[in-house]
Amino acid sequence: MNDSLSPQALRHAIRSGAHRGNTSGLAAGFVQCNIVILPADWANDFLRFCQLNPRPCPLVAMSNRPGDYTLPPLGDVDIRTDVPSYRLFRDGKFVEETPDITPLWDDNLVTFALGCSFSFEEALLADGLEVRNVTEGVNVPMYRTSIDCNSAGPFAGKMVVSMRPFHAADAIRAIQICTRFPAVHGAPVHLGDPALIGIDDLARPDYGDAVSVGANELPLFWACGVTPQVALEAARPPLAITHSPGCMLVTDLRNSQLAVM
Amino acid sequence: MNDSLSPQALRHAIRSGAHRGNTSGLAAGFVQCNIVILPADWANDFLRFCQLNPRPCPLVAMSNRPGDYTLPPLGDVDIRTDVPSYRLFRDGKFVEETPDITPLWDDNLVTFALGCSFSFEEALLADGLEVRNVTEGVNVPMYRTSIDCNSAGPFAGKMVVSMRPFHAADAIRAIQICTRFPAVHGAPVHLGDPALIGIDDLARPDYGDAVSVGANELPLFWACGVTPQVALEAARPPLAITHSPGCMLVTDLRNSQLAVM
Repeated sequence: MNDSLSPQALRHAIRSGAHRGNTSGLAAGFVQCNIVILPADWANDFLRFCQLNPRPCPLVAMSNRPGDYTLPPLGDVDIRTDVPSYRLFRDGKFVEETPDITPLWDDNLVTFALGCSFSFEEALLADGLEVRNVTEGVNVPMYRTSIDCNSAGPFAGKMVVSMRPFHAADAIRAIQICTRFPAVHGAPVHLGDPALIGIDDLARPDYGDAVSVGANELPLFWACGVTPQVALEAARPPLAITHSPGCMLVTDLRNSQLAVM
Repeated sequence: MNDSLSPQALRHAIRSGAHRGNTSGLAAGFVQCNIVILPADWANDFLRFCQLNPRPCPLVAMSNRPGDYTLPPLGDVDIRTDVPSYRLFRDGKFVEETPDITPLWDDNLVTFALGCSFSFEEALLADGLEVRNVTEGVNVPMYRTSIDCNSAGPFAGKMVVSMRPFHAADAIRAIQICTRFPAVHGAPVHLGDPALIGIDDLARPDYGDAVSVGANELPLFWACGVTPQVALEAARPPLAITHSPGCMLVTDLRNSQLAVM
């Protein structure tokens, strides 16, 4: 798959089944989103959870009304078919992955599209910074922390963070760059000693892969889009549908359009 | 001296000799400047030194021509009388302090006004952050580092930094706030391990006073206005005049006017 494919062309290839799997690095320059789909009677609490926890759950777009499978702000999206792989959860438990949720769709479902770290990683790389998980070709390491999210109805839990190490001067620059992008997690929530946010061992992430950290580097920790998935597991809605890790909704929004300055 | 005195009134009190000494905390909200005065044939190299080292030497204003003792962008300044205390250097060596340089003035002198950390400390305090040297009522600790300045003619030397400790989340916020103010040193140049920039012992600053640093705090290091004084000592111009530490030029510019966004 050509990484300079337009987001429309890539989305249509996903819709037709011609592209399956990871979207990392594809349609470069365009926003990719985490997806959460919930029954309408769970949607208001989840919306409030996003509003109360904007750093792990930065809401980019949501359905205009229950049952609407379009997301006009993001392009000609049909959310039933335009994510390469979906994960189904029933009562908070993972059931299966599927490339098409059309058979499951009903007039009761509400879609949430949340910002993802791909956008700020692109901004860091464009500035000449090294992003370790990209250099090492692995998934970013992610950790459950001791930081409580603000709860909303049944949605609650600890914040999950992703970690990228930098030398001090690059860490300061990374904070400046990410501050421009609050819609894709924004600035880090922590840096330095992992134990201060309840992380025992950087070499043993709870999700993703460990990366090397140099002796003179500082770990920087960003609020992570896995946080809402953890809150979903705790809330145990009868049905929830998310993207599969790395298999995102590709949108027509440019990353630069998310910059606040 | 009333801290809500206008900058004009304070400057006039300094000019008349009614106010002597420190200007810290006075004319709150208004920019105070470090001052360097040099003979014209040394001024071009010093200007280039500032241009090459904008973080320690952020130039806010300079004379329109040699011998001009006004600085119109900064208010109705007479630089011969409007700084509470001046320091004289001959051949790079400190000679004496004086409250009035009118007897020394000639048509050959050029004035440089450089941004100072008072402005960003005010922005940090306004955001609710604790600034340790303010809390503890001492001068900020300053350290010579191993970081080379870019040299310009005879002006060269190591960067001097000031240090303020913060918890990680406040450190990230402090970086965001100071990024808005490049004209007053901007974002920190380093954070974390002092040894990485050649500082052996935080408890033994080269200038100013030590402050307490909590076990869970990170030291943040800003480029400091003492840097050009060190470069002056190395360059050894036949005459140089600076403000005395803490005795700044009070200007009519508001701190908020220096914000780039």
